[in-house]
Amino acid sequence: MSKFIKPSINDIEISGIRQFNTYASQFPEAIKLTLGELDFNTPKRIKDKAIEALNNNKTRYTTNQGIVELRKKITKDTLFTEDNVILTVGTTEALAIVLKSVVDQDDEIIIPTPGYVGYEPLIHLEGGKVREIDTTKTNNCITKDALEDAYSERTKALLVTSPNNPTGHVLSTEEMAVITQFVTDHDILLVADEIYHDITFELSQSFRDVASLKNRSVILGGYSKSHAMTGFRIGYVIASTELIKGFLKVHQYTVTSTSTISQYAALEAEEFTYSDMVETLKTRRDYVTDTLDHLGIEYIQPEGAFYVFYNISSTGLTSLEYCKQLLQDYGVALIPGEYFLGHHNAYVRLSYAADLTTLKKAMTQIELMHTKIK
Amino acid sequence: MSKFIKPSINDIEISGIRQFNTYASQFPEAIKLTLGELDFNTPKRIKDKAIEALNNNKTRYTTNQGIVELRKKITKDTLFTEDNVILTVGTTEALAIVLKSVVDQDDEIIIPTPGYVGYEPLIHLEGGKVREIDTTKTNNCITKDALEDAYSERTKALLVTSPNNPTGHVLSTEEMAVITQFVTDHDILLVADEIYHDITFELSQSFRDVASLKNRSVILGGYSKSHAMTGFRIGYVIASTELIKGFLKVHQYTVTSTSTISQYAALEAEEFTYSDMVETLKTRRDYVTDTLDHLGIEYIQPEGAFYVFYNISSTGLTSLEYCKQLLQDYGVALIPGEYFLGHHNAYVRLSYAADLTTLKKAMTQIELMHTKIK
Repeated sequence: MSKFIKPSINDIEISGIRQFNTYASQFPEAIKLTLGELDFNTPKRIKDKAIEALNNNKTRYTTNQGIVELRKKITKDTLFTEDNVILTVGTTEALAIVLKSVVDQDDEIIIPTPGYVGYEPLIHLEGGKVREIDTTKTNNCITKDALEDAYSERTKALLVTSPNNPTGHVLSTEEMAVITQFVTDHDILLVADEIYHDITFELSQSFRDVASLKNRSVILGGYSKSHAMTGFRIGYVIASTELIKGFLKVHQYTVTSTSTISQYAALEAEEFTYSDMVETLKTRRDYVTDTLDHLGIEYIQPEGAFYVFYNISSTGLTSLEYCKQLLQDYGVALIPGEYFLGHHNAYVRLSYAADLTTLKKAMTQIELMHTKIK
Repeated sequence: MSKFIKPSINDIEISGIRQFNTYASQFPEAIKLTLGELDFNTPKRIKDKAIEALNNNKTRYTTNQGIVELRKKITKDTLFTEDNVILTVGTTEALAIVLKSVVDQDDEIIIPTPGYVGYEPLIHLEGGKVREIDTTKTNNCITKDALEDAYSERTKALLVTSPNNPTGHVLSTEEMAVITQFVTDHDILLVADEIYHDITFELSQSFRDVASLKNRSVILGGYSKSHAMTGFRIGYVIASTELIKGFLKVHQYTVTSTSTISQYAALEAEEFTYSDMVETLKTRRDYVTDTLDHLGIEYIQPEGAFYVFYNISSTGLTSLEYCKQLLQDYGVALIPGEYFLGHHNAYVRLSYAADLTTLKKAMTQIELMHTKIK
């Protein structure tokens, strides 16, 4: 690494997921169920809206905050208004500017695990620490006791993801009540990563609707998953105007604004839910979980997103050993659980961003491996 | 401001330029020569390339670094290769990730002034300091003496902008030699902001061609100005692979990648220079400077970009007083020099991102005001 790069940047490790993907690319014939990107195209009506914007020369800067029409649509029928929104370069940038604005030296952020790997580096970069809560010990739910145990004088925020990556768990009404009480009691901030919000199969609820949290909640959302728009790089953050004022400073100096074309395209995404896609994902979810049931493999019930996090402890292998063996000997790539926040070595993540035929082949191979190990 | 926002973010002030623009918006009839965005549309062939990308479903994530085809085109006929490039969300993000990766607590960054206002907040956020060099004292040129005076043990980098905003000054061959020697002698980094690189009227040269700096130069570029693509949010950083490795970590956690559609559109921008636009800008530049000559008003010779930074000290007014009077009494909005890096109170910035008819009206009003003051 160059000596001009400062130590805290050098300390950021390349994520295990990336490393494993590089390794998996040596097996070009393998079925890859490693992806965080859906196998659906962006709906034509959204692409047409982007084309319309281009033809109408909507190719100049918008305000830093983004076009008011989209901010209005995002907050329609919520407790918030257009003033409470910044349009961002995907949910990634929303997360980056929020953590940059909030996390100070030695601040602690509580995060339930299993969790997304992208949170910790951003918190470390600001000198903060992650306090993990292992939800696999409490039936995959966030409990009051676990939150109180993790709390300290340095706690600045609680960060939750619902639906969760890598588990697909959707926060229940009870969990949301526990969380609301906890952040209110301790006067801390709630950061709710709701990037998978529109991909749920049973229950669907959002912290953007919890009135009592209005001044202490930060909602991160976007269109990458819900409308297969990853390449458009458009997401948003919703928060009180006081918080938005701070986030906007970081946003303007980080990116100025997000793509004007993508902002106009997202206007169309706000007009409909991609229900065909969600239905298809539900069918796949059901197929995978039914098969795991049949094989007697335990998993965390996925209620949203497009992942199944299943337990491999019966094999006696670590999650990396399991994934390497499954890849080398059976031609299926999954992500070892140890690479997610919380290092859950007893689990692996299967992404069902693949068609049913492919999933069936993959599950047959998984069955083969488990039969052989027994 | 919210108590959840940390002090260093609260300390960032909203830029004077923004404040002045808000003030100027109270005069809707006024001629606004305040803009950093050109009055040209994105060329049709670029928009068509974006449309083609949309129709071909090029709407998924690219790699974090960006599509290799564009990185190859950017580095064609240079000392660098595609491995030396990251595609960014405009030059803004390129600057943000570079300063974030390089500037550590108490590091000093030398910046010649007059300069762009966006540098200092990013440096302060990392705990660094700006050491200014006032080039108006040295005939608007960077000299060895001034650089050596600004140097200290804490100097991490020299940041230069060519063509410059707000002056339009283009670094001469002599200045580039002085800079090259200085950063090499002291073993520091050179950050060259070349966002206006393709808008020059006489001399045009780039630090990307200085072989001896290959391992210590960071070149920031983009298409926002050269091809009127501000809303596409696409730029790039060029540096050694060792530096790129560090920048890439910050880039991936800040934005993941920039818009896929914009990356494909920029492929077309790489195919041509927007020479009609540059010719038009040269005509405007000549008109404005000829008029200033005629009025006996001194200015820094603009050789690129689309700004004239002219001296108003003969009026006896501060730059803010001058701009307010010109706006209120004569209906022309310029930006006070005190709002740029270096706080050059004897100057104002006129942007000629406006057609010749508008510029003529504006210059007539400026003449009126100067006649009255005399």
